[in-house]
Amino acid sequence: MTGVITRATPVPAPGMPGRVRIYEVGPRDGLQNEQEIVPLEVKEEFVRRLLAAGLPVVEATSFVHPRWVPQLADAADLMTALGDSIGEAARDCPVLVPNERGLDRALELGLRHVAVFASATETFAAKNLNRTLDSQLEMFAPTIERALAAGMDVRGYVSMCFGDPWEGPVEPQQVVTVGQRLLEMGVGELSLGDTIGVGTAGHVTALVEAFTAAGTGVDRLALHFHDTYGQALSNVQAGLRAGVTTYDASAGGLGGCPYAQSATGNLATEDLVWLLDGLGIDHGVDLEALVATSAWMAQQLGRPSPSAVVRALAQSTS
Amino acid sequence: MTGVITRATPVPAPGMPGRVRIYEVGPRDGLQNEQEIVPLEVKEEFVRRLLAAGLPVVEATSFVHPRWVPQLADAADLMTALGDSIGEAARDCPVLVPNERGLDRALELGLRHVAVFASATETFAAKNLNRTLDSQLEMFAPTIERALAAGMDVRGYVSMCFGDPWEGPVEPQQVVTVGQRLLEMGVGELSLGDTIGVGTAGHVTALVEAFTAAGTGVDRLALHFHDTYGQALSNVQAGLRAGVTTYDASAGGLGGCPYAQSATGNLATEDLVWLLDGLGIDHGVDLEALVATSAWMAQQLGRPSPSAVVRALAQSTS
Repeated sequence: MTGVITRATPVPAPGMPGRVRIYEVGPRDGLQNEQEIVPLEVKEEFVRRLLAAGLPVVEATSFVHPRWVPQLADAADLMTALGDSIGEAARDCPVLVPNERGLDRALELGLRHVAVFASATETFAAKNLNRTLDSQLEMFAPTIERALAAGMDVRGYVSMCFGDPWEGPVEPQQVVTVGQRLLEMGVGELSLGDTIGVGTAGHVTALVEAFTAAGTGVDRLALHFHDTYGQALSNVQAGLRAGVTTYDASAGGLGGCPYAQSATGNLATEDLVWLLDGLGIDHGVDLEALVATSAWMAQQLGRPSPSAVVRALAQSTS
Repeated sequence: MTGVITRATPVPAPGMPGRVRIYEVGPRDGLQNEQEIVPLEVKEEFVRRLLAAGLPVVEATSFVHPRWVPQLADAADLMTALGDSIGEAARDCPVLVPNERGLDRALELGLRHVAVFASATETFAAKNLNRTLDSQLEMFAPTIERALAAGMDVRGYVSMCFGDPWEGPVEPQQVVTVGQRLLEMGVGELSLGDTIGVGTAGHVTALVEAFTAAGTGVDRLALHFHDTYGQALSNVQAGLRAGVTTYDASAGGLGGCPYAQSATGNLATEDLVWLLDGLGIDHGVDLEALVATSAWMAQQLGRPSPSAVVRALAQSTS
């Protein structure tokens, strides 16, 4: 291989958006499942390099209780270290806040963007939060209200939007009901997650259409796919055709699904970039810098990246 | 994970075909890159189990000179063994014939389906066949003519249809020119291959449209994608939307790309089946039997399957 081709050839497809916003979740959603604690300075460099590669949003960590996610016990220290290294830009990195205690910590640090994490199904609400669907939303209400009052904006993750390992397939209308409750509470953007990766292209179209039929514009929606069954990028294509312009992705494909025994987790940011480049859709990310970052992170974690693009290109860019 | 979901939920997408034909290439395209020789009886069991899983076409081997592909030196013995075990059905398994000597061997065995392997680019024709674009087609002419005269049907692979590692991007019109020459020579079906996996969805649409604009119906086209950059299944979706109904795939994702340093090769048949099931498109394959076959083959080869679906489901089906 002489390496002539290291970028996709742009051949636009009709009816696709001209620009996409990639919401990078690697440092939070990717690292939270790592068994071995990643050193603070590695996390700090990871976030800094992702921002430097042009990613417009990098969710940095979660203010979850350390008992549940020991990997992210250093959340406040990480945000302070980022403030020292990149200044004001650190305050623009979103953080997950599971409840008011998490929000308090984000407020103390002067952060501007928080996210809450809801379930679309009763069973996952019970397993993950020990709550009913309704009571999880009641729990979020004061968190969202106080965040908005402090001038923050709030993202609402909705998990298990396509299927649930206990309940089976999830009806789009059920997701719309939960999502619209969050929007009514003041959430600015919904991230619709296929937490166990079972969704396919027609299901994506149906879910987006269920939201628009209920009056929610595609500009309020982000899509969050997992590659458990290899469907993530095909699902992005269906989302693009339905007009959705924000996609969550994880650099290097970091992150497994804690509820499925699988080596494959989050959609890899690099594979998404390859698709967007191929479709001639702007995203602002420097693929070479991103691949080098993920190759470096794979070395830190001691195993190869699951991203196809990172595997194919790492040797030419590291 | 309780395992409630082991199948995609069917949610059809508008404008897609109702039925797809999967052309299984694992025993030939998948195994040809294996360094260690796979025993004849393992190959025979592999083909037999793939047919038993409902795959309508299983390309079994190649009558290439053993010097070039030592792994397939047992081609004639394999076809004889298959004839002993499955009878007449063995004669319906296509085999690749690089030239008239290969065809002679297929004729001696009474096989009914052969395939030739052409390049869309000058450089790959030179590297792979030591010929020009024109002289490769001249070389195929007597092979195709004699196969047709013997009542066989002939498939024409066209490689490097999206990009070439030496020449860079490949124009659709160039592929149409080569493909239509093969059709004029009597080839029944063209398999358009993204040999190095660089193509994306818009490029797939453009290539299919270039053929239809030149008068070639989608019923004469098959698409053959590699997952080198994670794009294979997204590309299938674009092909489905363009009306193509035949897709090549390799059980378990077997097969690397000899011209790209990458761990990821052919589109995995299981991942394709998951997408088709999700779209409610008929294919006739028993996913459980297929996953069990690929999990068994992965054990024979001594490494995990690259198929996401096989990794996710193998424990529940083996």
